[in-house]
Amino acid sequence: MWLNGKEISLSGGRYQNCLRELRNRAGEYTNENKGIHIEKYDWNTLHVHIASYNNFPTATGLASSAAGFACLVFSLAKLMNVKEDLSQLSTIARQGSGSACRSLYGGFVKWTMGNEMSGSDSIAVQHANETHWDDLVIIVAVVSSRQKETSSTSGMRESVETSSLIQHRAKVVVPNRILQMEQAIRNKDFSSFARRTCADSNQFHAVCLDTSPPILYMNDTSHRILSIVERWNQHEGTPMVAYTFDAGPNAVIVAPNQKVANDLLQRLLFYFPPARDNELSSYVLGDKKILHEFGLESLSSIEGLQPPPPEAKDKAPAQRYGGDVSYFICTRPGKGPAILVGEDHALISCQT
Amino acid sequence: MWLNGKEISLSGGRYQNCLRELRNRAGEYTNENKGIHIEKYDWNTLHVHIASYNNFPTATGLASSAAGFACLVFSLAKLMNVKEDLSQLSTIARQGSGSACRSLYGGFVKWTMGNEMSGSDSIAVQHANETHWDDLVIIVAVVSSRQKETSSTSGMRESVETSSLIQHRAKVVVPNRILQMEQAIRNKDFSSFARRTCADSNQFHAVCLDTSPPILYMNDTSHRILSIVERWNQHEGTPMVAYTFDAGPNAVIVAPNQKVANDLLQRLLFYFPPARDNELSSYVLGDKKILHEFGLESLSSIEGLQPPPPEAKDKAPAQRYGGDVSYFICTRPGKGPAILVGEDHALISCQT
Repeated sequence: MWLNGKEISLSGGRYQNCLRELRNRAGEYTNENKGIHIEKYDWNTLHVHIASYNNFPTATGLASSAAGFACLVFSLAKLMNVKEDLSQLSTIARQGSGSACRSLYGGFVKWTMGNEMSGSDSIAVQHANETHWDDLVIIVAVVSSRQKETSSTSGMRESVETSSLIQHRAKVVVPNRILQMEQAIRNKDFSSFARRTCADSNQFHAVCLDTSPPILYMNDTSHRILSIVERWNQHEGTPMVAYTFDAGPNAVIVAPNQKVANDLLQRLLFYFPPARDNELSSYVLGDKKILHEFGLESLSSIEGLQPPPPEAKDKAPAQRYGGDVSYFICTRPGKGPAILVGEDHALISCQT
Repeated sequence: MWLNGKEISLSGGRYQNCLRELRNRAGEYTNENKGIHIEKYDWNTLHVHIASYNNFPTATGLASSAAGFACLVFSLAKLMNVKEDLSQLSTIARQGSGSACRSLYGGFVKWTMGNEMSGSDSIAVQHANETHWDDLVIIVAVVSSRQKETSSTSGMRESVETSSLIQHRAKVVVPNRILQMEQAIRNKDFSSFARRTCADSNQFHAVCLDTSPPILYMNDTSHRILSIVERWNQHEGTPMVAYTFDAGPNAVIVAPNQKVANDLLQRLLFYFPPARDNELSSYVLGDKKILHEFGLESLSSIEGLQPPPPEAKDKAPAQRYGGDVSYFICTRPGKGPAILVGEDHALISCQT
């Protein structure tokens, strides 16, 4: 397997778990046109070349392993003719990376804990698909692309073992918050969605800090982004946008619509202008339609553009942190894995 | 009143609370030599000039307001002939700044919650005096002397109102931890003392992060100091030193004895060398005896001095963060407030 053009080993337990489960469920494959016939047991000896590419940084807490394992399990399941529905595939992907189970669906997905000790009913279910609340715009601030020190899988295990707060969070806070969150998504109630998203992000990082040794995912730049959003929300008297930080320093900021996303990007570019030699086209990336709405093509210079946002005026002259953000990715709630047809999508030459 | 040479107002509620309580308890004062006689009711109209000076930064989360209010209440109580014991004075100081009640004693002090709604039995008690465990050496890393954004008094109130984890911490974790901590201090069990000190510091900051809006006292430099200590402790298989962060970014690091303090300072100076123009004598301050034991007088250059500590060798070349620490203060568990005799200690000229 090649990940982003670099050969990687599949001998690790996380990969082998997924491969074993897939082989157990593999079916026959026949393509008469090409004269191919593969029996179920053939999959134990056949070799497969896999090329994978992700368009966002790996292992920086942006769920790259979730996306990768979901993609790997889904693709191999289709290739090997595994006759299972997505929820069953989600239990396989979960054995590679917990949150990979969620990435098999698009839109809004819930990972249910389940009751079985074996974990067989710990599956992902789709709460609403990506078209349900399609006004949302997401801006990801990629703060650092250094590899993080703690993998999220081992970090979570250490929290469970050593944090005394995580029990309270798991038993009391989360079950209630999930119900409220489902309701907020169902009703497209952005204010409720935003409050709970931010509170839950902060409590997750609180539990990380309560772990021994403590897990420190957020850095000064993360703290600054958080404070910029909190100050803005406080100034408006209602949540304008929601932030959430996963197992790394990068911020995922959700705006209710394109107009607010424009205001958000303006603030982000004011506080975090690109390093002097950085062009705008390589600083704000992602969904072409969103970028077009931002009107970024017509910006010749960020430096002179933005006046400080109104909420900054309460304080002393606003400080700016050029270069502290590597780049921004603009996107929307997305689809799950999809099979692309046509050889021009292939990452490996199909010629033998 | 002048604080560090600058006139400040005493009209705020925190000062007025203390002054009112002291006036209520004031006694007569007679000095026949000087022909002075003051009746209790005279204190309501007399004016007092107060000069105060602290030898560490104000309002950066190093308990400067605790020290200040303890000093103010103690000094005025002596001047005004208030006949109360220290525990009663501690309830007065507490109304200026919560943790000031502890600062009326030296050594190891516990702030008891009390049961009365009025707070009248929420007093400080001395668990052991400063001679009980006098091997301990404390190094404070002063990370930033910028005024912090959240005062610890208002921060704590917001946590109580908005954090769902603080209830669990207050009801379940802290009562048990206090008992264990008292035992660790009684037995001078450094390993137990260190584990609980670090865990409690981290959990305090976890609750701050779980507050809405979140309170962020620790910064990247705080995180680096924490990681340096954790890595060292992990490498040795037992806690060498303990860290605790109060309501600010500065680290308070406790070593069990002078020898380990030497190893600690060597590590701190390795990772945080002074800014190039900073002389060692203005970079490592405090208790003259400790500084002498460090042998700092004989250091001509820090740059070339330290090899990386052994636990750094597991990783890539150790990064160093020159200038990220303003200075270090070396000290020991101290005494409570003391009356200094002799005019050469006075901060105001005694000539009328």
